[in-house]
Amino acid sequence: MTRRLQVAALGGGHGLYASLQALQHVTDGITAVVTVADDGGSSGRLREEFDILPPGDLRMALAALCSTTDWGLQWRDALQHRFPGDGPLGGHALGNLIIASLWDLLGDPVAGLDLVGRLLGARGRVLPMAIEPVRIGGTVRGDDPERPDEVQQVLGQVRLATSPGQVLSVHLDPDPPAACAEAVQAIYDADWVILGPGSWFTSVMPHLLVPELREALVHTRARRLLTLNMVLDSGESRGFTPADHLRVLTEHAADLHLDVVLADPGAVGDGLDGLRARAQEMGAEVALSAVADPDHPGTHDTLRLAAAYRDIME
Amino acid sequence: MTRRLQVAALGGGHGLYASLQALQHVTDGITAVVTVADDGGSSGRLREEFDILPPGDLRMALAALCSTTDWGLQWRDALQHRFPGDGPLGGHALGNLIIASLWDLLGDPVAGLDLVGRLLGARGRVLPMAIEPVRIGGTVRGDDPERPDEVQQVLGQVRLATSPGQVLSVHLDPDPPAACAEAVQAIYDADWVILGPGSWFTSVMPHLLVPELREALVHTRARRLLTLNMVLDSGESRGFTPADHLRVLTEHAADLHLDVVLADPGAVGDGLDGLRARAQEMGAEVALSAVADPDHPGTHDTLRLAAAYRDIME
Repeated sequence: MTRRLQVAALGGGHGLYASLQALQHVTDGITAVVTVADDGGSSGRLREEFDILPPGDLRMALAALCSTTDWGLQWRDALQHRFPGDGPLGGHALGNLIIASLWDLLGDPVAGLDLVGRLLGARGRVLPMAIEPVRIGGTVRGDDPERPDEVQQVLGQVRLATSPGQVLSVHLDPDPPAACAEAVQAIYDADWVILGPGSWFTSVMPHLLVPELREALVHTRARRLLTLNMVLDSGESRGFTPADHLRVLTEHAADLHLDVVLADPGAVGDGLDGLRARAQEMGAEVALSAVADPDHPGTHDTLRLAAAYRDIME
Repeated sequence: MTRRLQVAALGGGHGLYASLQALQHVTDGITAVVTVADDGGSSGRLREEFDILPPGDLRMALAALCSTTDWGLQWRDALQHRFPGDGPLGGHALGNLIIASLWDLLGDPVAGLDLVGRLLGARGRVLPMAIEPVRIGGTVRGDDPERPDEVQQVLGQVRLATSPGQVLSVHLDPDPPAACAEAVQAIYDADWVILGPGSWFTSVMPHLLVPELREALVHTRARRLLTLNMVLDSGESRGFTPADHLRVLTEHAADLHLDVVLADPGAVGDGLDGLRARAQEMGAEVALSAVADPDHPGTHDTLRLAAAYRDIME
């Protein structure tokens, strides 16, 4: 009997969603470890009203892992459904409200997420990276476009992700936050740990700032796969070469080593040599694979990404 | 093979909840037909924000019919859970938000309620009495305590249920509302139809004001059981004799006949002869049964009410 491949996928938002959708084609031994720094939209409003973990990225990850039965898909659609209008409920995703209620009722973030996972027949588990909500802050150059060389502190995930400046580094508050023990364990128990894709500073980096998670990433026997974004020079990583993406990881977690860096050749372009050199310093080889979605430029194609994951992990 | 007893239970709020909890001990062929005039609390706020059917009493009925598996009870507790505090979500019952979302998503009130019923493993079906929200209005004597003899119109379920005056009659807006076809059919298909217990004018009476439901109640081959409240002279029926409860039904639905009127002997007291006479005019016998909950004066005991239902229906 072969043991089922255990994969821990770290991230948040749409990047993690894409990764989980692909991973489902490879294994059902998936644990998603989700950042909890979001302070925008429905999640931000729930944080403000109840001082809870932001449920939005957790809900997205659960939706990605949903079983494809009629039952699962119907409840996935319900979880993803947003109230219309701009009244007190307008814009809230129902799944966020279900998760928030279960947390209040059960008093345990992991138990609440597990119950929603059972409702969806989720092919894997979804865990928060920390059991308390965190704020992410960053050092940004040129947050004020009129003073492009000034370096200043910017607080909040939404502010950071939408800053016109260049993010230099990020930190969490509280520092350190209390890690989710089950998430730490999942990294130790994994055969593969996957970082990225996603917003580089606000979705991929936060996990490295939780000491117990960083320790687990450094010491796990799992192999470490970094998935680069399809668009490498935009948003939070505006002006970055492919190699710069690895450099900032090392700046935030000096002892982090990687085994494989998965990159799309079109996305990397002439930055390949630099990327290979930097990857080698971190112990990793670069796996080039055409994983672009032809219909949605700038995003990963689920089946191509699944094939790349499978080829790497086999 | 014996056919399962089919029972349609009409009402709203806590009265219907008590009736459904008892009925579960008698049959699992239950259809609850629930009033949709509530304009208070979480339901009232949802009506205001989205102009939808008030989900609260429907949610309560589903909770009453919930299966007693761990799964069912956990989701029942989640549906009944209310957000704390007095912020934008404070006081909303999660189940109301789930039902409202499913209505928006599926575009069909019955499909949404059936899906929640499946989630709970409900032993029966819960239907609205109408497929559009209604307002209930009443003619009240003495709504203003300083002018106790003045008769005036009072609009809204909450206003009516809490008026210090005497409700004389009620009407619905729109008049007539569009009935729920499945609810009408359930009354025709039933072996027994149960009216009450509950707030007499705002939970028991509204169904008689939906022409298609009243027609079905008059013409169904089902036997008709009226369950009187444990407290007969309070709230909306302040000053009423037991017989008055039947009189106002006839005033709102002249052709309504009953087969059995179930009453607690302690609640009826010396009003028994009058009740018997009035019941006879409607074609009904009075079934006396001690159904009081000794621990909660003024309410029905689930198992005693279940035994009374069973004895009557057998």
